[in-house]
Amino acid sequence: MVTQFAKRTLQGSKISIRRVMTQALNSPESLHNPYFNQAKGQKDIWTLINETAAAAAAESPRPVVNLGQGFFSYAPPEFARGAVDNALEKAQFNQYAPARGNPNLLKSVAEQYSQAYGRPVDSSQVQITTGANEGMFSVFFGFLTPGDEVIVFQPFFDQYIPNIEMCGAKVKYVQLKYPQKLDKENVTGDDWVIDWEGLIENINSKTKIIVLNTPHNPIGKIFTEEELHRIGELAIKHNLIVLSDEVYENLFYTKTFPRPAALASLPELAERTLTVGSAGKSFAATGWRVGWVQGPASLIKYVTAAHVRICFSSPAPLQQAVADAIIEARKNNYFEKTIDAYVKKYKLFTSVFDELGLPYTIAQGGYFLLVNFSKLKIPHDYEFPEDFLSRGTEDFKIAYWLIKEIGVVAIPPTEFLHPDFRKAHGTSTCLRFAVCKDDSILQDAVERLKLLKDYL
Amino acid sequence: MVTQFAKRTLQGSKISIRRVMTQALNSPESLHNPYFNQAKGQKDIWTLINETAAAAAAESPRPVVNLGQGFFSYAPPEFARGAVDNALEKAQFNQYAPARGNPNLLKSVAEQYSQAYGRPVDSSQVQITTGANEGMFSVFFGFLTPGDEVIVFQPFFDQYIPNIEMCGAKVKYVQLKYPQKLDKENVTGDDWVIDWEGLIENINSKTKIIVLNTPHNPIGKIFTEEELHRIGELAIKHNLIVLSDEVYENLFYTKTFPRPAALASLPELAERTLTVGSAGKSFAATGWRVGWVQGPASLIKYVTAAHVRICFSSPAPLQQAVADAIIEARKNNYFEKTIDAYVKKYKLFTSVFDELGLPYTIAQGGYFLLVNFSKLKIPHDYEFPEDFLSRGTEDFKIAYWLIKEIGVVAIPPTEFLHPDFRKAHGTSTCLRFAVCKDDSILQDAVERLKLLKDYL
Repeated sequence: MVTQFAKRTLQGSKISIRRVMTQALNSPESLHNPYFNQAKGQKDIWTLINETAAAAAAESPRPVVNLGQGFFSYAPPEFARGAVDNALEKAQFNQYAPARGNPNLLKSVAEQYSQAYGRPVDSSQVQITTGANEGMFSVFFGFLTPGDEVIVFQPFFDQYIPNIEMCGAKVKYVQLKYPQKLDKENVTGDDWVIDWEGLIENINSKTKIIVLNTPHNPIGKIFTEEELHRIGELAIKHNLIVLSDEVYENLFYTKTFPRPAALASLPELAERTLTVGSAGKSFAATGWRVGWVQGPASLIKYVTAAHVRICFSSPAPLQQAVADAIIEARKNNYFEKTIDAYVKKYKLFTSVFDELGLPYTIAQGGYFLLVNFSKLKIPHDYEFPEDFLSRGTEDFKIAYWLIKEIGVVAIPPTEFLHPDFRKAHGTSTCLRFAVCKDDSILQDAVERLKLLKDYL
Repeated sequence: MVTQFAKRTLQGSKISIRRVMTQALNSPESLHNPYFNQAKGQKDIWTLINETAAAAAAESPRPVVNLGQGFFSYAPPEFARGAVDNALEKAQFNQYAPARGNPNLLKSVAEQYSQAYGRPVDSSQVQITTGANEGMFSVFFGFLTPGDEVIVFQPFFDQYIPNIEMCGAKVKYVQLKYPQKLDKENVTGDDWVIDWEGLIENINSKTKIIVLNTPHNPIGKIFTEEELHRIGELAIKHNLIVLSDEVYENLFYTKTFPRPAALASLPELAERTLTVGSAGKSFAATGWRVGWVQGPASLIKYVTAAHVRICFSSPAPLQQAVADAIIEARKNNYFEKTIDAYVKKYKLFTSVFDELGLPYTIAQGGYFLLVNFSKLKIPHDYEFPEDFLSRGTEDFKIAYWLIKEIGVVAIPPTEFLHPDFRKAHGTSTCLRFAVCKDDSILQDAVERLKLLKDYL
């Protein structure tokens, strides 16, 4: 590629241009894996939103309120941080942990699942991973080969797609159908129903895995027992693995949290279920990178084999700290208290949308809120930067306007859809807010969002 | 697969056997990626050696001395551990670090390279990774596609091979030629010479990367400026990337440590060099999982793209701690002091081999020692377990005997060769010892190894 600069410099000399072109073709950059094509030029969503937020903050007298990315505004509980300090004091917890994971953590996680599932789970059924993300990737790598297919419900957490495609496998998309009611009124996760026909149509002899995410990001849906049962029957019939991303397992606001690995009506589903968990999500420590995969030992061994090659082992002092923190959390009812705190956070934050009459999906679990802004009237002559316009969906415009004019950061959820589905999708007028923030931050967001009443 | 147990239980009923076989074929386990074939049954070397060591320790009145795996027997320096405590106190350092890495760490690492290379390196030329292992894997994934080829010198660090093959690429092996002299007398890394003919023969239009490891594991060789220059010329001629694994960069015992990214005689080599570093190796913290890749920004962006999908981000509190520790290490001459300490460790440990007349490769860098045990006479009727015998090389037998009879653990180095090369290779009578241990542990090993004089 001859740059404008090179063109000007070379002033039309054909020989020199040819040399520059040859050099470019012969450049080390030309060797890159085309899957990671940076030349497309579109920024990833996190960079785009965070940079826009930072620019808006620089212009504004008040800092913008960031409810975009799902990180916590506060530190992990003192008992968890203290456990890291203790671990650091011992030489062994500063060195490679066993590839399977710190034995104390394997035990703590197994006990946690034994309690949650109501049946014994032992250490051989757990693999510690470097965050849930690398856990998902290790499952995909442990099972998928080029040409295999994986069912993913959309909307989806965006990392699933490259993680599957990097194994050479293909994603088949099945709709969690947008509830039309959400254009006008609040709905719950139950109103987002599976496109069963689409699911059945997309299963074939190449299908290996169905990915679930419950509680669901960005919807906040918890899959019902009936839904899990029907998915499970299909998985058994077609010999598929159910990969259940349950990183928000300790944040559910329904009476029960059904799980494919502990389904009373279909206990044999556990034999083909791999469940992913996250210390980061459970202890407000997304930066610790400690997660795990739970499942039958006969499947876990392939997750281990992939994990060892991807990351070798996971952060040792933080593993030991999480082992201790899980025990302490059970003693002091930390997870129950956290649920209570999050019910209050949702109440505080949703109050402004109730007041404004902007409908949302009442979250059954997790820490996101999906709000429909179709009623919002952005002035017709409002100017948007190309980075946002080029996405071609309303949610990017709404997100930009909200950052610039109201000072509140949220994520445009069409990013969690396959490009073919984005424009016509009901979520194209929605935004996703993360409520895993201090109450004072949520209160600040509420005050700012009240300003929207002049634009409805 | 019908197990012996199932066969006995079914007592010959053809119908029942068919059902069992169908179930097995239709099992979720049958879906696994055949690359990770656990059915081969051979234990990985770390599990084999560690389990054997544990069993020997249980039988013996004294604990065995483990100089096998390259983890430190001691904790990271107090200033580094204290830096973690400080990081944990701030909410932000417990949450997702930016995908590129904590900006403070990017700056610290860039400054460190600026000093080492004698030219300015900035943050855009660094990607933080979840240990050096995930750094190597991110480079491979960022550049390799199925059918590509990578040159690896053997002996090699074992993780390189699956990391390359998992990208669908092929490893081409080139010899670091075993110096015959090592059968009789000490040699240095300079005596391990590159098979230049083999290198040139193995480069073709599919070749994308040459992997270097300097200081080298397990040899302890530091590649000379002349060697790097000649490799560099080939890389430039054939448009290849040089991937230089320099995790032992702060442990060199030669006057200079030549690096492909800072080669005075061939400065343009830096444009196609990616260098891998490790906080774990530099701060005696192999369990922290903080590493990095340094190189031109035009190449680093593909490493970033792969890393984001593999691990999303790296451990945040440990990144901040390493950022602080690098600054502190420069102030208190930590790396210089560590080198002095390691010169003494080698002196202490090699004394016993000098006394016994067992030749070794004098380490130019790193923390391993490769010793030739061809003079060792193990009694002819000594019995070895199948796990060791089945490897088919002497070094596994020597390693087993040394654990059981002397109580010292070392690694059989044929594991670092392609299977086709193992039997005839000079290292098949060698063992690799890790000296990254407290002096008292090394002294204990020396005392035990003195017992070998009765077997020579």
